[in-house]
Amino acid sequence: MSVPTAAADQSVCAPLPVLGRDVTVPLVTGGEVTYAALDYAASAPALQRVWDDVAAYAPYYGSVHRGAGYLSQLSTDLFENARRTVAEFLDCRTGDQVVFTRSTTDSLNLLAAALPAGCEVFVFETEHHASLLPWRDARVTYLDAPDSPRRAVETLEHALAGRDPHGPALVCVTGASNVTGELWPVRELAAAAHAHGARIVLDAAQLAPHHPVSVRELDVDWVAFSGHKLYAPFGSGVLAGRSDWLREAEPYLAGGGASRTVTRRADGGVDVEWHDSAARHEAGSPNVIGAYAVASACKALTEAGFDTLIAREEQLIRTVREGLADVPEVRFLSLFGDDAPRVGVLSFVVEGWNSSHFAAALSAEYGIGVRDGLFCAHPLVRTLLGSDPQSQGECGAPEAAPGEKSLNAIRVSFGAGTPDEHVERFVRAVRELVRDGARWSYRTEDGRCVPDTSDRT
Amino acid sequence: MSVPTAAADQSVCAPLPVLGRDVTVPLVTGGEVTYAALDYAASAPALQRVWDDVAAYAPYYGSVHRGAGYLSQLSTDLFENARRTVAEFLDCRTGDQVVFTRSTTDSLNLLAAALPAGCEVFVFETEHHASLLPWRDARVTYLDAPDSPRRAVETLEHALAGRDPHGPALVCVTGASNVTGELWPVRELAAAAHAHGARIVLDAAQLAPHHPVSVRELDVDWVAFSGHKLYAPFGSGVLAGRSDWLREAEPYLAGGGASRTVTRRADGGVDVEWHDSAARHEAGSPNVIGAYAVASACKALTEAGFDTLIAREEQLIRTVREGLADVPEVRFLSLFGDDAPRVGVLSFVVEGWNSSHFAAALSAEYGIGVRDGLFCAHPLVRTLLGSDPQSQGECGAPEAAPGEKSLNAIRVSFGAGTPDEHVERFVRAVRELVRDGARWSYRTEDGRCVPDTSDRT
Repeated sequence: MSVPTAAADQSVCAPLPVLGRDVTVPLVTGGEVTYAALDYAASAPALQRVWDDVAAYAPYYGSVHRGAGYLSQLSTDLFENARRTVAEFLDCRTGDQVVFTRSTTDSLNLLAAALPAGCEVFVFETEHHASLLPWRDARVTYLDAPDSPRRAVETLEHALAGRDPHGPALVCVTGASNVTGELWPVRELAAAAHAHGARIVLDAAQLAPHHPVSVRELDVDWVAFSGHKLYAPFGSGVLAGRSDWLREAEPYLAGGGASRTVTRRADGGVDVEWHDSAARHEAGSPNVIGAYAVASACKALTEAGFDTLIAREEQLIRTVREGLADVPEVRFLSLFGDDAPRVGVLSFVVEGWNSSHFAAALSAEYGIGVRDGLFCAHPLVRTLLGSDPQSQGECGAPEAAPGEKSLNAIRVSFGAGTPDEHVERFVRAVRELVRDGARWSYRTEDGRCVPDTSDRT
Repeated sequence: MSVPTAAADQSVCAPLPVLGRDVTVPLVTGGEVTYAALDYAASAPALQRVWDDVAAYAPYYGSVHRGAGYLSQLSTDLFENARRTVAEFLDCRTGDQVVFTRSTTDSLNLLAAALPAGCEVFVFETEHHASLLPWRDARVTYLDAPDSPRRAVETLEHALAGRDPHGPALVCVTGASNVTGELWPVRELAAAAHAHGARIVLDAAQLAPHHPVSVRELDVDWVAFSGHKLYAPFGSGVLAGRSDWLREAEPYLAGGGASRTVTRRADGGVDVEWHDSAARHEAGSPNVIGAYAVASACKALTEAGFDTLIAREEQLIRTVREGLADVPEVRFLSLFGDDAPRVGVLSFVVEGWNSSHFAAALSAEYGIGVRDGLFCAHPLVRTLLGSDPQSQGECGAPEAAPGEKSLNAIRVSFGAGTPDEHVERFVRAVRELVRDGARWSYRTEDGRCVPDTSDRT
């Protein structure tokens, strides 16, 4: 595998402080409880450190790049330093560019817009829609779900062997599945891509918050991730990697900041000379606070130490797996097998339960926030559920009533800010719900499964 | 004109509290002074109210749209309520969509990507690059700079009269110039556009922070603005208006959130059904904090009352104009004449001064942050300066040494958070610099004009 895992004897740290750790929420059964945020794979709470950095900077906020004032120059330096911090966090090569985007989705759409003419794209059907769908102008080969990391590499090699070896090609692959949490063999896939003259972009949205990502060691051409999954939910993401395709592409957005000079021609038209640097794809005033927040999170995670963070997360994963091992009604979803290395993301179904109903009961009766649905990875989840690949369940808005067979799954996910108690409460809650059923009745309202309070108010 | 101005007897309020109002910066001449942020037209400080709202919400941050937990549902409601608040702020029509983007630049690039096939675009050469450049796939007619609002309408009418009346067309126009601050006759331009079967989008980046914008009254089809100029610098912008072109267009970004269902076909391909709502163009996890900040700013400005804000701003404009009226070396840039209605944005050149040098001295010797350059509106500024329309001065990175003739201008801009003292200090500083010269020497370093401290350290 391409990503290091913690040694068994690794010391385990306390959770990193995050915003919202003391927030209490009401239970439908009465009383309040601290909220257990177990939907980190969708969006993670801000690290307290990130918030504190943003709060300390905010009074010094100024327009960047083109202001003559003290705060403008301070903000410009801070923004460009954030770029360097991200490059260090990703262990980028000399000459790599770091472009600030708004999210992983945006980063991959930017790369898609920068593909050379005639570029072929290879992507597994198991990807998140952000990796699956942006390649609208390219010829895309969708690869079948593999049943092991080795099969993934073989599948890719087979597909690449059949391509025109002289044209440009790109492989897009996730580092860790947003559904199963399983780690993908990124380094081996990168080697396969390069052996066949293709390039590779790593979707690190789910990997970067949990494991170190080294562009250099993995030998990927680009990496994309989101601030809001990396404990920095202020609207920024990153695309980092080779500059050549980016430099040669049309600017992602047309506007100020990306344009070096704009001149009116004698014939009435307009000529534009664009920047070659990252600014080429960052038109408009940059989201300085968002970029600074991402850099702050990179520093905080590096300082906490990924070895320590991984050791803690592995322990939480064991708590879930071992705590539910003797509950046969709970089936975890997996491509590579139950013991495959993973980050703190696990999806499952519960026999006899509609997943939305189950997730609603976890929230209303235990104050636990998980997610139900197809997790913006419809083909993968349908494959894992064994449901009709053509089924039309909406992304996260299932209409099935409580008790019906579910076309969706439940996902629990956690990370650096998760205390043991949240995961322990989750295990206890699942066991109780399976054993005793929900204590409340539920109904579907506006696509949400909610406690039915109609006869009690 | 299309935008109301304050009555002369309007009561004048205190500035709205903003972050950074107590920040002090060092002067090169010794000591410290509170920073005078006079670059609002580039990016404005956050309203204290916006910051307080963000800080109060941040612990409750949760994944939106697809989470089953309490904070996810709270955050989803907050995000969708922010959309409604913005729709009210803009006085949108029933059926209009509010799409959260990252900035005005992003909003106009989104609209550009949503133009129907064969759409012609009409845009004045006087626009900011964000309005001038996004129309890359359309046939664009650039209109010459008008010398009055009436001439602007006539120029547009003349151009539209010559177009194919059966094809789609779009006019893009600013509400207030980012260079001169002058108000454009938006309602009249909208009427002209509609009379010729064209649609119109209002670039309200510089207008919305200063004047009320009513989509309904102005009868524009779309409006775009940025949070970071509206005292909410958290990475969000807005495109609001008619839903038909947006609904029929390919999604701006391809990914989760925009996709309703994704299915693998029997032939190995992938079918996507996209959402019709605003989500169609908002793929990826939304910037909830950014959207909430924009909504908070909309509420704060509405509650403060635009009549009051305008009265105060007009007074500050008078302070500048009257304070410098007897300084012949200062020439203000204007298309429509010195007395044309404007927002708090004024550009000028100083005879005998390089603009970068002047701006650097304002910063280093007075703690005043203005902007020098071409303000991402190169054709307009060159027209106003009377300089060679082909000159290659970079956007905000002038290389001319102090004392050389400037190809750039200086811009001072302010708004709801600006205390009288900042503008009074600016007037005093300009007068002193013109009369006495700078007290320090300056040099150009990395494209910035900076105090030369080489022989003093």
